[in-house]
Amino acid sequence: MKLLNDNYYLGSGALKNLGAYLIDLNERCVLVIDENVSKYWNDYLLECVEPCQCASIILPSGEGNKNFTTLNKLYDFFVTSEIDRSVPVVICGGGVLGVVGGLAAATFLRGVPLVNVPTTLLAMVDSSVGGKNGIDLAAGKNLVGSFYEPKSIWADSLFLNTLPTIEISNGMAEVVKCMFLDAQSLTLEKEASSRIWVTESHKPLWDEDFYLRLIEFAVRVKFAIVRLDPFDRSDRYKLNLGHTFAHSLEVCTNYHLTHGQAVSIGLSCALNLARRLKILKEEQLIRMKTLLELWGLPTCIPECVSWEDFFHNFKYDKKREFSKNIFILPVERGKLVRVDFVSAEDLHWVFEVTKAK
Amino acid sequence: MKLLNDNYYLGSGALKNLGAYLIDLNERCVLVIDENVSKYWNDYLLECVEPCQCASIILPSGEGNKNFTTLNKLYDFFVTSEIDRSVPVVICGGGVLGVVGGLAAATFLRGVPLVNVPTTLLAMVDSSVGGKNGIDLAAGKNLVGSFYEPKSIWADSLFLNTLPTIEISNGMAEVVKCMFLDAQSLTLEKEASSRIWVTESHKPLWDEDFYLRLIEFAVRVKFAIVRLDPFDRSDRYKLNLGHTFAHSLEVCTNYHLTHGQAVSIGLSCALNLARRLKILKEEQLIRMKTLLELWGLPTCIPECVSWEDFFHNFKYDKKREFSKNIFILPVERGKLVRVDFVSAEDLHWVFEVTKAK
Repeated sequence: MKLLNDNYYLGSGALKNLGAYLIDLNERCVLVIDENVSKYWNDYLLECVEPCQCASIILPSGEGNKNFTTLNKLYDFFVTSEIDRSVPVVICGGGVLGVVGGLAAATFLRGVPLVNVPTTLLAMVDSSVGGKNGIDLAAGKNLVGSFYEPKSIWADSLFLNTLPTIEISNGMAEVVKCMFLDAQSLTLEKEASSRIWVTESHKPLWDEDFYLRLIEFAVRVKFAIVRLDPFDRSDRYKLNLGHTFAHSLEVCTNYHLTHGQAVSIGLSCALNLARRLKILKEEQLIRMKTLLELWGLPTCIPECVSWEDFFHNFKYDKKREFSKNIFILPVERGKLVRVDFVSAEDLHWVFEVTKAK
Repeated sequence: MKLLNDNYYLGSGALKNLGAYLIDLNERCVLVIDENVSKYWNDYLLECVEPCQCASIILPSGEGNKNFTTLNKLYDFFVTSEIDRSVPVVICGGGVLGVVGGLAAATFLRGVPLVNVPTTLLAMVDSSVGGKNGIDLAAGKNLVGSFYEPKSIWADSLFLNTLPTIEISNGMAEVVKCMFLDAQSLTLEKEASSRIWVTESHKPLWDEDFYLRLIEFAVRVKFAIVRLDPFDRSDRYKLNLGHTFAHSLEVCTNYHLTHGQAVSIGLSCALNLARRLKILKEEQLIRMKTLLELWGLPTCIPECVSWEDFFHNFKYDKKREFSKNIFILPVERGKLVRVDFVSAEDLHWVFEVTKAK
């Protein structure tokens, strides 16, 4: 097991050390388990927290549950479990449960100790790092939330073994984004580009060591940026590469696109916009798109999305300031620019070029 | 106008400087106005923010509105006003709107600039200071919330001129608490004890200068404590004097007691418990109770409250840790002790002694 950034534990079977960690905090804890995770890992999880007296609840996952209903279920569970401000809340699940659970822990009694156990590749490499939490409103994604640093994060690669193929793809979208952010990523990119990762029947091949390296890479990249800008006011904008497009696409498709798929198309839009503005070389664009597609990710805007909806939703982007959208664009590996004004004409061009034919 | 602690503006007509302050931040702002405040001060408020392009909403006040419904109204208003993370949210109202509005501002887009305009004595001396916000759950008061420091707080004593008598009393409950916390409060306490503050027909007498001194005193006491412990982990416990009892009483009476009334009875309970534990002199107890009563505050537990309910609600106190309630008790002016264990027997004695006969 490795410890990254003082609070991120990573390893195969890392969770077997969780119980000893928790009992040091309190003899009690509460456990929130994602419905999909509980199917395969319920006993494992209960064993891992065993030294503690523990109440648990199973909650549904999926973007559709990132709302007040789930938040209120969590508050009710905390109330009936009679937790006080010293009782750790352990959230075991993917990105959705991680961020709703994070918001619940951040706001119940104005903050109880949060222990995050991300169980998907996407949650391990992205949402569990950086302290952001949130729920969606009808008007947009993550419109309500806060910054709240977990006490610790436990990424146990064993969980990846039961992930469906699409969940591996989803995680890879954020990993590929990180490859853009880090000047030293060429070797890993080459490895990821040459990898056969699914069987002929489209099941993921199990290669724990490779995934552990991917996770460590992405987590280090993200921590390095978040440390400089915990509250998302400056450097952290880099992490938003592709995300203004992605968030709009998620709303436009009523969340039928997964977050990873939307990020992949969003990256593709950002690449196209960077080409349009003549700041990116064609070969870079092709290499990254090919990599996304190799990992089973879409790179075209679905036909059902209209230009009007796509454009309209930019209005609700959280990164917007003084009524202007801000775009982060790739220049080369490790180098991005922030563009504070992009014309509607250029955006429309990007929409047309990226749209599925 | 005085500036306290770098962000608290205090004075008669202080709000006339708000517009110049806001326009420096952004050409737009949104204004949230308490229904009671808007009856008397709507035009004044709109004038004070005049240089800005401003959308406004009027919301009901009262503890019964410190809930998800009000929170969602605020989110909807922010969405329809198309605010981004650079647009200040100005909350004008008493404690309830201040803390619900504070939570909305803290969590919309993970935090928009918050400007607090407390309009009651209680909000000026207490809830607007220290960054706490929150809403109630059925199980208890302020169970959901966060810490979020406003960009600035504007206490304009002109608002006090339209407050009903009971609201002056409510504010005084927290001021009297502050007198216990500060070793230098004797002169002000003597002045407050000898004051005729209501007319024969029970209307408040207008004495702006005296109230400005009271507010400055209480705000300085609170800031000094909060600065040492912004997240309520140590020194800030002092501010909880009387509040474990008060919160239980508010729930027991279904919030028919105002917060100030509950705090006054809670202080009375804390005084009695301190006497029971032989850490406080009888004369201190009598002096403080007399002062509370002079300012129109109750010091007895209402007859309708049962011991079982009173005791049961301690369970949901946010200050509870490791399943134990923590009591802050007065010893003498400026000196308090934290008691981590109080027997049910002693609490029952306090209940009986404090109960209305």
